[in-house]
Amino acid sequence: MLHQTLRRIEPVDPNLLVQAQIKLDQLTKPLGSLGRLEELAAQYVAISGNLNPSCPRSRVLTLAADHGIACEGVSAYPSSVTSQMVSNFLNGGAAINILARHVGAEVQVVDMGVSRDLSHLTGLVVRKVGLGTKNFLHGPAMTREEAIQSVEAGIALVEQAYAEGVRLVAMGEMGIGNTTSSTAISAVMTRQSVSHMTGRGTGIENTRLAHKIQVIEQALAVNQPQAEDPLDVLAKVGGFEIGGLVGMILGGAARSIPVVLDGFIAGAAALLAVGLAPVCQQYLIASHLSGEVGHRVVLDHLQLRPLLHLELCLGEGTGACLAIGLLQTSIQLMTQMATFDSAAVDRMITTELEST
Amino acid sequence: MLHQTLRRIEPVDPNLLVQAQIKLDQLTKPLGSLGRLEELAAQYVAISGNLNPSCPRSRVLTLAADHGIACEGVSAYPSSVTSQMVSNFLNGGAAINILARHVGAEVQVVDMGVSRDLSHLTGLVVRKVGLGTKNFLHGPAMTREEAIQSVEAGIALVEQAYAEGVRLVAMGEMGIGNTTSSTAISAVMTRQSVSHMTGRGTGIENTRLAHKIQVIEQALAVNQPQAEDPLDVLAKVGGFEIGGLVGMILGGAARSIPVVLDGFIAGAAALLAVGLAPVCQQYLIASHLSGEVGHRVVLDHLQLRPLLHLELCLGEGTGACLAIGLLQTSIQLMTQMATFDSAAVDRMITTELEST
Repeated sequence: MLHQTLRRIEPVDPNLLVQAQIKLDQLTKPLGSLGRLEELAAQYVAISGNLNPSCPRSRVLTLAADHGIACEGVSAYPSSVTSQMVSNFLNGGAAINILARHVGAEVQVVDMGVSRDLSHLTGLVVRKVGLGTKNFLHGPAMTREEAIQSVEAGIALVEQAYAEGVRLVAMGEMGIGNTTSSTAISAVMTRQSVSHMTGRGTGIENTRLAHKIQVIEQALAVNQPQAEDPLDVLAKVGGFEIGGLVGMILGGAARSIPVVLDGFIAGAAALLAVGLAPVCQQYLIASHLSGEVGHRVVLDHLQLRPLLHLELCLGEGTGACLAIGLLQTSIQLMTQMATFDSAAVDRMITTELEST
Repeated sequence: MLHQTLRRIEPVDPNLLVQAQIKLDQLTKPLGSLGRLEELAAQYVAISGNLNPSCPRSRVLTLAADHGIACEGVSAYPSSVTSQMVSNFLNGGAAINILARHVGAEVQVVDMGVSRDLSHLTGLVVRKVGLGTKNFLHGPAMTREEAIQSVEAGIALVEQAYAEGVRLVAMGEMGIGNTTSSTAISAVMTRQSVSHMTGRGTGIENTRLAHKIQVIEQALAVNQPQAEDPLDVLAKVGGFEIGGLVGMILGGAARSIPVVLDGFIAGAAALLAVGLAPVCQQYLIASHLSGEVGHRVVLDHLQLRPLLHLELCLGEGTGACLAIGLLQTSIQLMTQMATFDSAAVDRMITTELEST
């Protein structure tokens, strides 16, 4: 399934970007004056293959999993919070629920590998690869087979969404310890030092930050993940929800629908996905620059410019939801504004300025 | 009326900012992880005086006027575009219409001084101070009485909106030549050189940019506007819609409702309003950083941080509308998210990290 999906991924048609810009330039506004909203509309045209698109039905997939590394004291919150927040998502009380409702997006909460059995929770989609990863300080987080299984679960979630009419997916996650895993992945994939990439996650203080850096450095020394083999990196220092996010990107690109990145963890998954299939990058929308320090390095490496700079560092898909709102706006502008001709508005003066 | 309004403006209660943050810190998310959305929610609490606010009924006031200076060839578009765009706003075909609809805001289009008689247009609010300003290259744009009249018209528009239940106003404008006027105002009020403050407006090329700088420098030498007297600056190098925007800020602050800035022209108006009543600054929401080069200097001078960086440079209220969406989101997050207690989610670990 993974290999079939990789084979289905095609680049977008660059000609559609040009045609979209021609269309935008007919609208009653100075050329380029809608800035990045024009870029976003053109990207959506290129991805969807439709010069007159409507706003896509959108689904946030919030993937949850636990991390063995959390027992090393790298987070400000106990592991119990992962499953507690899953309940909170299902009850509609978390930030992602409020933000998704605001833009009319669905939220699907998926247990990719929470350490407790949550099968009794109504509305939860269970795609458990295991009861949390192993502590990767002493060896791989998961087997290569589990890594593939988590990626394929992400692909399958997008396939199901697509079959149900969803035409945009947004990446969300929850997992105490997952900035540690994402930092390890990002350091390997971008070839940056761990100390350069490590941030405060849910808000750790200086002592814990220094400890987190030490833990990640040791984990990389023990596991020796190979950047040229993204599945190796995922297996050795990744997480089950991160594998699912990798699959979401591959699945979205294979179906030619946009995949909206969220923060640092989504970015780490994108590094792996682009490592597996570079063309995926064209289907990614970088929603925001997170407060997590390594995120800028990740987005630069992906050659993506974030739309928003709001100092969010929450995950769940929160930044992605805000970007869905911008995308809807940009589509509406492109398809609903009057043109210079239809509104009888004079165009730009193209004659030379007379000397005065 | 102007003096009465200035006397009614009171600072916000700083204690409400603290109480809002205490409330935000109870919600199921790491402390501060909603970044600038938390700041925005707290500001709205402080302005509205309500710790449990709902989303305010919002109105964009798009004020239009013509500028005598436009005949100096400072714009890429002919003056005819001002009135043509007024028709476009009323017909719902402009960017502001689409963006306002997306966030559920009303658009009120006001003729503050378009050079043509537009009284036949259905839906247009006519508060004409004159048939466009005079060319301020050779003397004042308007009389001091006209300057006061334009400011008072802006106050009256907000008073009317308030009486109709509106609890947020957003600043919009249209006027070929108004970045030239705004640059002159901003250079005077921030004490920066004209060349440092002058941008490309609707998209002028290098020759026209150099010419625009020369025109503004000459206009300032001829008129000698006095920064310590904002009404003098408005009269000498301002515009009727800019006076209206100044009044909107004063009127909004006097009624304790937020006033959302748009781009560079709104920023120039804010410099004048804050010059008249410094406390106004607390009621301003800086929606976005425009592509117009002087805007950053203006916002720095106002000690405001823009929420969005989307390279918009269109005006009309477009950036302000996007910020209304963020404000709605921030209010919903503050009032609808579950708390740690209500959702039974464990709090941050506060014990020291054990040595490992």
